[in-house]
Amino acid sequence: MKNKFIVLEGIEGAGKTEACLFIKKILKKINITNVVAVREPGSTLVSEEIRKLIKYNNTLTKKAELLLFYASRVQLVETVIKPALMQGNWIISDRYDLSSLAYQGGGLDINQHLIISLRKMFLNDCKPDLTIYLDVTPKIGLERIRVRKNLDKIEKKSLNFFVKVRNSYLKLAASDSDIITIDATFNKNVVKKEIKNQLYQWINKQCL
Amino acid sequence: MKNKFIVLEGIEGAGKTEACLFIKKILKKINITNVVAVREPGSTLVSEEIRKLIKYNNTLTKKAELLLFYASRVQLVETVIKPALMQGNWIISDRYDLSSLAYQGGGLDINQHLIISLRKMFLNDCKPDLTIYLDVTPKIGLERIRVRKNLDKIEKKSLNFFVKVRNSYLKLAASDSDIITIDATFNKNVVKKEIKNQLYQWINKQCL
Ligand SMILES: Nc1ncnc2c1ncn2[C@@H]1O[C@H](COP(=O)(O)OP(=O)(O)OP(=O)(O)O)[C@@H](O)[C@H]1O
Ligand SMILES: Nc1ncnc2c1ncn2[C@@H]1O[C@H](COP(=O)(O)OP(=O)(O)OP(=O)(O)O)[C@@H](O)[C@H]1O
Ligand SMILES: [Mg+2]
Ligand SMILES: [Mg+2]
Repeated sequence: MKNKFIVLEGIEGAGKTEACLFIKKILKKINITNVVAVREPGSTLVSEEIRKLIKYNNTLTKKAELLLFYASRVQLVETVIKPALMQGNWIISDRYDLSSLAYQGGGLDINQHLIISLRKMFLNDCKPDLTIYLDVTPKIGLERIRVRKNLDKIEKKSLNFFVKVRNSYLKLAASDSDIITIDATFNKNVVKKEIKNQLYQWINKQCL
Repeated sequence: MKNKFIVLEGIEGAGKTEACLFIKKILKKINITNVVAVREPGSTLVSEEIRKLIKYNNTLTKKAELLLFYASRVQLVETVIKPALMQGNWIISDRYDLSSLAYQGGGLDINQHLIISLRKMFLNDCKPDLTIYLDVTPKIGLERIRVRKNLDKIEKKSLNFFVKVRNSYLKLAASDSDIITIDATFNKNVVKKEIKNQLYQWINKQCL
């Protein structure tokens, strides 16, 4: 099978980071070991610097923030994701540009067309093969991360903000056949089982 | 007269920074004292952070750099330039988005349409009233700044790069009636006199 680009999406506490590790394990079981895991924003020197700027700066305007997310993403795509894919590696990314549509578009009310234009201008030829959207209510998601210290700017936003983000994710996922939605409100074992099932099904379809 | 937004452009060592100070003095002489001076990239907390990232990072890809310049610019426009203009202030900016067209477009061969799209998407309603382009040969410009210690990434580029940037500036200036080109190869007094003449002429035209 050709190597693939897989993305995990969802609001805070949906379980993306743990799912990324889990998917790496599943792939290993079927002898896919050339897997590069990245997170967004981040995973390059520049992108991690930008991540800090975004996460802890309170004066940033919405549009400047959107452009910073894209600068970070373009750096990651051009220096890590594309080269790794070209060399035959799989990519698992903890978030990608669906997050911009859900957070900056759905959550912050930036015109979706502006974000889609950026996608077309800068990511045109680097689309994920599969996006797994982990769906939880903001109440459950935020409860799960409540134990974390030093919550960043985004994690401190109101419940209402995350309701808008989640609704946006649900709409986006419903309209794109490359996005699989998984109910991630259940306990870890149930969610893992579902991720495994869906991933195997998807992989089998790719091999037809 | 309505307050105006004036931009100084040119390659390294053209004399932009000194010209900004000089224009502020000229305006003062004709009783225009509500002048806000900014530089690009920079002049906001976020933009100065982005400036550092751009200036001293060697791994940044061309497109990520372009997006960082725009993030910095949008932050400056939304938090400083637009509010200041709305309150009736004049703006003098040491560089603005013509620099992106000349450096990233002309110098680094990024498709001009991509840059013009960003301008339309993010700066649409914030166009300078007047841009003064100070034209020097790269040889003269670079000679003037040679004494500076710690030259940054851009200042260290080859003469050939600046030849491309200058040619791009000349073309852009020729095709836009809001850009005045001044031969800045002469000595400071001659250049200042010319700036003063051109500025007075332009101001008089605005008052007709
Ligand atoms: N299905 C689940 N049930 C209960 N707890 C879970 C579940 N999935 C993950 N968790 C726990 O919730 C917390 C958040 O999980 P994780 O860090 O994977 O989420 P995330 O989506 O990556 O969050 P963030 O967006 O903040 O990075 C962790 O402590 C994790 O162990
Ligand atoms: N017409 C001129 N003749 C000779 N020297 C000049 C002239 N104009 C400026 N200089 C000198 O050249 C140097 C560069 O000028 P200045 O800093 O204003 O240029 P700049 O366009 O802002 O450069 P940079 O893009 O690097 O910021 C300064 O030392 C300045 O005093
Ligand atoms: Mg996480
Ligand atoms: Mg200067």
